[in-house]
Amino acid sequence: MPEPLFRRLALIGVGLIGSSLARVARERGDIAAEVVATARSAETRQRVIELDIVDRVEPTAALAVEGADCIIMCAPVGAYAAIAAEIAPHLAPGSIISDVGSTKQSVIRDVGPLVPEGVHFVPAHPLAGTEHSGPDAGFATLFRDRWCLLTPPPGTDEAAVEKIAELWRRCGSAVEVMDPNHHDRVLAIVSHLPHLIAFTICGTADDLAGESRQQVLKFAATGFRDFTRIAASDPEMWRDVFLNNREALLEMLARFTEDAQAMARAVRWGDAAYIEDKVERGRAIRRSLIELRQA
Amino acid sequence: MPEPLFRRLALIGVGLIGSSLARVARERGDIAAEVVATARSAETRQRVIELDIVDRVEPTAALAVEGADCIIMCAPVGAYAAIAAEIAPHLAPGSIISDVGSTKQSVIRDVGPLVPEGVHFVPAHPLAGTEHSGPDAGFATLFRDRWCLLTPPPGTDEAAVEKIAELWRRCGSAVEVMDPNHHDRVLAIVSHLPHLIAFTICGTADDLAGESRQQVLKFAATGFRDFTRIAASDPEMWRDVFLNNREALLEMLARFTEDAQAMARAVRWGDAAYIEDKVERGRAIRRSLIELRQA
Repeated sequence: MPEPLFRRLALIGVGLIGSSLARVARERGDIAAEVVATARSAETRQRVIELDIVDRVEPTAALAVEGADCIIMCAPVGAYAAIAAEIAPHLAPGSIISDVGSTKQSVIRDVGPLVPEGVHFVPAHPLAGTEHSGPDAGFATLFRDRWCLLTPPPGTDEAAVEKIAELWRRCGSAVEVMDPNHHDRVLAIVSHLPHLIAFTICGTADDLAGESRQQVLKFAATGFRDFTRIAASDPEMWRDVFLNNREALLEMLARFTEDAQAMARAVRWGDAAYIEDKVERGRAIRRSLIELRQA
Repeated sequence: MPEPLFRRLALIGVGLIGSSLARVARERGDIAAEVVATARSAETRQRVIELDIVDRVEPTAALAVEGADCIIMCAPVGAYAAIAAEIAPHLAPGSIISDVGSTKQSVIRDVGPLVPEGVHFVPAHPLAGTEHSGPDAGFATLFRDRWCLLTPPPGTDEAAVEKIAELWRRCGSAVEVMDPNHHDRVLAIVSHLPHLIAFTICGTADDLAGESRQQVLKFAATGFRDFTRIAASDPEMWRDVFLNNREALLEMLARFTEDAQAMARAVRWGDAAYIEDKVERGRAIRRSLIELRQA
């Protein structure tokens, strides 16, 4: 077995992503010699002990990062500023702080200024997840064959970036370095907007009166059912994602709304050619995804 | 084996739904003693012969319905008026004409007036489908444990309605009779609007310039990938559905758009409580679906 990448890995948060990281680290043994975790609630800490997926569970983030050479924040992105403020005085020189958040400009804005001199900051985003959450939801193969995007600020230590890249490669992911602004725009359309739409349409259906609402649930055909699967994700996480990728999300939503209105107009006026063209484009994108093995 | 329900079943169209019906009829043997099919294209007819899923393939709908006691239109709903006009003179008294279209008021409007005296008209909609189309896409278990909604016009012969209900029960479906207007509203929100949205967002992504567009395909995370699965469906079919459920679809799209704008406002102004509430409602609907075994 190769040398472990880190002596001590500290996971701040042990939900779907954190607990999956813990499991893959334990399974492989070459990611960290020791894994320490912390969670805000006593209940979650107890459950993590029962699941036996880390070496030690600490009640505070400050205690968890003590002596760690790699710290990964695995909490909703809205909690990062407070976490960074709490752990900053306890970070060892030469250690690396990273994260798994779905928005990257906000992480650089919130965490960057709090990172002490001599500590390396390598924001990361594994494009992996399910509609389940909590420490029981994680599994060791979650990151296998998925992308992990790194958005290190300019001037970040190359060796630190490489160590985080290697961590994710050992989790089975393909790693790519990306500009954080570009990351946020791409994620707004491929992930954040679809989730916003899915949550919204569930609400629209839920607002229908009486019998219709009952029948919506009863006859949920394929389309709506798929939307509810997306909409089943963690509320806190998504609230934070929306609020922390505001600009890009609102821009993509505005573009989408214009396009939906154009489609509405085509439906109203019976423009069959326009509708067919849009439907064909959907199919073409689907085919591209299949060719790129993303479907 | 029970007596076959029909002497001769004629399928007008042999795509995903028609070819699935043909397969289940052949597999069971108690749906029809003979199954005759027709398709517009010579290529499809040839393929149906190769697949050996029906007893006879005819080049025209008029020939296919000759002597049939049950006729099911399995074509895009926009083609129904022309099909009905073609087959009307060839329908035997006492025979039943039905369909599988996703819009029901339009079918009653387009086909109803053309049904000859003494022929029974029982519109039906099996809530089943995949993103694939054509005679190769069908399979005998497509309708199993799914709903089939019947929307017979007032005064329709009870025995004819029961025979069509029994046909779908033999396909494995649960049958429910519904008002056509109500059907169209419920389907607008559970199926037609989600498809319109999925087609639209694929177009929005496809319109992004240069590098972003490439990366959208490359990094399609869970959300977008699920949307493209919906969007991979048959263009002709969906064009016809949108155009033939115009009123209900535009109303549901208007409601959704209002809700999406409210969500955009909450994102812009940082209204965390509003966003969390919407996300929670999505989860609640998901849970209801799981309890109703629709998920």
